[in-house]
Amino acid sequence: MLKVTFLGTSAAVPSASRAMPAIALKYDKLFLWDCGEGCQREMMRRGIGYGGVDAIFITHLHLDHVMGIFGLIETIRMNTEREKITIFAPRGFERMLSGISPTMGWDPSFLDIREIEEGEIYRGKDYSIFAFRVKHQRSNAFGFVFLEDDKNKFYEAKAKKLGLKGRMFTEIQKKGFVEVGGKRVELSDVSWVRRGRKIVYTGDTVYDEGIAKTAMGADLLIHEATFGEDLKEEAELRGHSTAKQAAKIADMGEVKRLVLTHISGRYRNGSSLAREAREIFPDAVAAVDGTEIELTPEKK
Amino acid sequence: MLKVTFLGTSAAVPSASRAMPAIALKYDKLFLWDCGEGCQREMMRRGIGYGGVDAIFITHLHLDHVMGIFGLIETIRMNTEREKITIFAPRGFERMLSGISPTMGWDPSFLDIREIEEGEIYRGKDYSIFAFRVKHQRSNAFGFVFLEDDKNKFYEAKAKKLGLKGRMFTEIQKKGFVEVGGKRVELSDVSWVRRGRKIVYTGDTVYDEGIAKTAMGADLLIHEATFGEDLKEEAELRGHSTAKQAAKIADMGEVKRLVLTHISGRYRNGSSLAREAREIFPDAVAAVDGTEIELTPEKK
Repeated sequence: MLKVTFLGTSAAVPSASRAMPAIALKYDKLFLWDCGEGCQREMMRRGIGYGGVDAIFITHLHLDHVMGIFGLIETIRMNTEREKITIFAPRGFERMLSGISPTMGWDPSFLDIREIEEGEIYRGKDYSIFAFRVKHQRSNAFGFVFLEDDKNKFYEAKAKKLGLKGRMFTEIQKKGFVEVGGKRVELSDVSWVRRGRKIVYTGDTVYDEGIAKTAMGADLLIHEATFGEDLKEEAELRGHSTAKQAAKIADMGEVKRLVLTHISGRYRNGSSLAREAREIFPDAVAAVDGTEIELTPEKK
Repeated sequence: MLKVTFLGTSAAVPSASRAMPAIALKYDKLFLWDCGEGCQREMMRRGIGYGGVDAIFITHLHLDHVMGIFGLIETIRMNTEREKITIFAPRGFERMLSGISPTMGWDPSFLDIREIEEGEIYRGKDYSIFAFRVKHQRSNAFGFVFLEDDKNKFYEAKAKKLGLKGRMFTEIQKKGFVEVGGKRVELSDVSWVRRGRKIVYTGDTVYDEGIAKTAMGADLLIHEATFGEDLKEEAELRGHSTAKQAAKIADMGEVKRLVLTHISGRYRNGSSLAREAREIFPDAVAAVDGTEIELTPEKK
């Protein structure tokens, strides 16, 4: 399973219906991308076990993206057997924590804090998480990419017909070919490459065509869309994007699906923003709190 | 109007149905007593305008009582015309803020931070708010008392019959008597003293009979009741009270009503705790998120 759950989809100011930014990413482990105020209760409401959070990734240190982390840590510490939790955050997080930690019951060894730099920041069993820089006011801000490894998948009927069995499947993947009864069988004859799934989350960013390159071919682009075209100038001024700008990035990046999030409270529901985006990129929706998107692996 | 709204009624760990501790107190102004994580959204949900918060009072600096304050301040700063907000908090709050403030857009002059000491901490038009010390682990913890001034109220028919009019009402209150047509009228003949309304909130505390004295005669005692009798020892160990202990304080303090709050997630709803309390003090309920209690002034 590879599933994304939107726990909070508001911009800086939440509303009765939108919690502050947080995204749960479930694969073999459970990750959080951003952790706005109230995140732990949203997890409880959505049936996402907070005790299972393996690591928390923070795009940037603006309050709306990070203030849920302290309460969540305390809850995990008090209510689970966990001995450690990993936090990936831009420089400055430890200073934030230093003000708060004297009032917490935590043991410093409970937190494993890693400062985010551009590049691969997490390596999983068959996937990596990368951080890329985004431009958002003067903040030290990143976006994240989840990238599953490409995999050789066999056309099983064909491979068996050609006599492949047992260790030959390992051998052919290592060498690129194998000899079966005196005949050479090429890997490409019996297999295809399943492209790893790719999810890109921008965090907060101005319109930046560089993101299209980073997002190239993604199965899912989660792009902030704080404003509509009516507030394009305000978006630029405040380091944010419009729905249409997000759609342009999705289009240039040839992604499969676009989900808008970080929706300003001005837009009662996100449907007007989604409409604007679809003028440019048809497969676009605006997330609401609780939106779940499951990405199934490619099949042949 | 004097109204209390429970915005959050959980203990340290929230649940899907209980937000972290926060109480809105509405009289001529709007105050918050504690401000747990998510408080601003609970205000939005309950139709309590966050922009009108005049001052925030924090009982102690444990995360569950204070983490909602930073996001709320930011929202008020961004979305209202307010120039200042007052925060009453125990020593240590400024240190907490110092870690977080570099990531906020705030101007230090936006916050008026007052360190809580025992005694009167706020004087309103005809009421005061007092802080009193409570015992809660090693923290610097307080409870709060809202106390309306006593007022002379005239038996109007009787006063008029005796000839009182115009400035005589002011005069009799100053001097204690007034001469009407050669006859002396005593203040006590034509008026009665309406006792000011009194609300007491304990914050987090162990069982402490001193609180009964502080709460003496209160119209409303809001006492923490983290645990039931099954966990009486744990309550003591962790600096908390049981529902029965809260009821004992209500009984000794001869208060009119008792509301239990700060309910541990162990107790699905608070009804078992309320039952335990009612064995000792009949007018006891367990708050849920959204519970509103309006206190009407005494009439004769």
